[in-house]
Amino acid sequence: MRIAVIGLGLIGGSVLLALAETGHEVVGYDADPFTREAATSAAAVSPRDARWRVAHSATEAVVQAELVMVAVPLPAVAVVFDLLSDTGYQGLVTDVTSVKQSVCRLAADRLAGTGATFIAGHPMTGRETSGFASADSALFAGCAWVLCLGPDTPMDAWLSIAALVTSLGARVVPATAAGHDRAVAAVSHVPHLAAAAIAASTNGDPLALALAAGSFRDGTRVAATRPELVAAMCGGNAAAVDEALASVIEQLMAARVILSEDDPVADLPAWFTPGHVARAAWQVSQIDRPPPAITLPATPEALLPLGAAGGWVTAVSDDRQTVTAARPDQA
Amino acid sequence: MRIAVIGLGLIGGSVLLALAETGHEVVGYDADPFTREAATSAAAVSPRDARWRVAHSATEAVVQAELVMVAVPLPAVAVVFDLLSDTGYQGLVTDVTSVKQSVCRLAADRLAGTGATFIAGHPMTGRETSGFASADSALFAGCAWVLCLGPDTPMDAWLSIAALVTSLGARVVPATAAGHDRAVAAVSHVPHLAAAAIAASTNGDPLALALAAGSFRDGTRVAATRPELVAAMCGGNAAAVDEALASVIEQLMAARVILSEDDPVADLPAWFTPGHVARAAWQVSQIDRPPPAITLPATPEALLPLGAAGGWVTAVSDDRQTVTAARPDQA
Repeated sequence: MRIAVIGLGLIGGSVLLALAETGHEVVGYDADPFTREAATSAAAVSPRDARWRVAHSATEAVVQAELVMVAVPLPAVAVVFDLLSDTGYQGLVTDVTSVKQSVCRLAADRLAGTGATFIAGHPMTGRETSGFASADSALFAGCAWVLCLGPDTPMDAWLSIAALVTSLGARVVPATAAGHDRAVAAVSHVPHLAAAAIAASTNGDPLALALAAGSFRDGTRVAATRPELVAAMCGGNAAAVDEALASVIEQLMAARVILSEDDPVADLPAWFTPGHVARAAWQVSQIDRPPPAITLPATPEALLPLGAAGGWVTAVSDDRQTVTAARPDQA
Repeated sequence: MRIAVIGLGLIGGSVLLALAETGHEVVGYDADPFTREAATSAAAVSPRDARWRVAHSATEAVVQAELVMVAVPLPAVAVVFDLLSDTGYQGLVTDVTSVKQSVCRLAADRLAGTGATFIAGHPMTGRETSGFASADSALFAGCAWVLCLGPDTPMDAWLSIAALVTSLGARVVPATAAGHDRAVAAVSHVPHLAAAAIAASTNGDPLALALAAGSFRDGTRVAATRPELVAAMCGGNAAAVDEALASVIEQLMAARVILSEDDPVADLPAWFTPGHVARAAWQVSQIDRPPPAITLPATPEALLPLGAAGGWVTAVSDDRQTVTAARPDQA
């Protein structure tokens, strides 16, 4: 496949390298000249069987592409969509940003009637480091990669991208854009907010920082992410994040009530138990005991319930009629 | 040194193994017969140069000891103190529980006038697994180990335990009991509460759990700890935890205000910055660039400011007059 990757940060750069290694004809572009230069140097020494190149302009990158992978930060997505529209691009388009409802609205706005087909995507992976220098073709091995799906989704396009994504080692999770945004608010955006609040609450007290160990290291790891990136992520999903954050605050306030009772040691275990149970369930279903493979029809009617049940697609059949999938509740 | 370790859970078991490896004559005891049995089996196959044994009773364990390491959960500490008092024990006593003011009050209550000398301690290490089966003599390498210090602390006793603890590879952080409790509330107890609240807020939604990746994995790791253990830890330090938790809740509520504004993406970076800065400062001072060694007098007047500045002791001189130390602000 001829693929253009627009935006060569951590995720875009990693997608580009992974696609090149899988044998696709890949061309990258980044609006930032320094990033472009770094990528051009890397391209010059890319392995013979995983060659890729950097275009001098976005137009040059997309003009011959069959698929455009939009890997720019959320605020720049509209610019790329407009460019695709202006150049008369007619192929597949997908993205990797962390909020989906706003991107889908944007695509409906800017790409409708252009002949381009948009499928919204989001690989659930990352690092606290940024930029092309951190790019790694192995970043997607085993990761969940949401591809948005609804009753009107063109299934040919969805399955093409699903096949591509599974070939990178990722698990494709079918979800509606709203379902995605609600879920990532709880499992990604709120953890970023909590990490920053915990780190900030030390007030830089040297004794506290000297005593900080495993629970602080892990609980605040993502506070090392650049504030602008996290702000774009959380701010772009503001309504869902606010709702998930309200639920966390409510629980912490309930903990404060117990802490001021006569015997908090007796009453706190019941408060800790639901989180303990949820964490253990996650560990079992996602890490320790992944469910066995099943075969499902490649239709929205079969795939949306799969995603809602926490399942994923691991392969698309050659005839595009079925997918290989896994469902934790059928383990 | 002849050392008795009372309580053979994760920390007690690890201390016992580490002390035995360092060449001390160690005897362990646990009130739970199953733990005692597991430890006795392990003792039988301990390496020839790191032999240790399990006593049949707590009295038998402590009768010949020069130091008793109390490694039982907080609610059981009083029982061990009473036993020491009843047996007429006259040596050194230290503990490894995660709250220090309440343990110091208990020691003043139960050990005063017995001839035993108590120095409160707390190794800042752990795992989300529990029990003797998880014990590991390497658990203390590089970890901060608080030894409480005040103007009236018998320095001979403090330095004996400090020398022992540094020989296990730990960094001794001198701190008042109140300073310790305030610091660990912020860097350990609140992260445990936040982890549980984040994990619980998924409500077991299968889609959310399928999309959970690095930020969820790390941000909720300690939610896997047994609820009773975390409850004892947080509940035993209720006042300090409540204060630190109030600060985190206040910050999260400020984030909610920004999230409901017109342009959260523009205003959130300033909210994220203090946590980002604190996390980066911690990473540099504790991990990436540990400060060079300095020499200090072995007095409370020199050691308490060291601890308050985030510094630690790495060795005690043979004549007990000075310590080798490190202070991040003198890096």
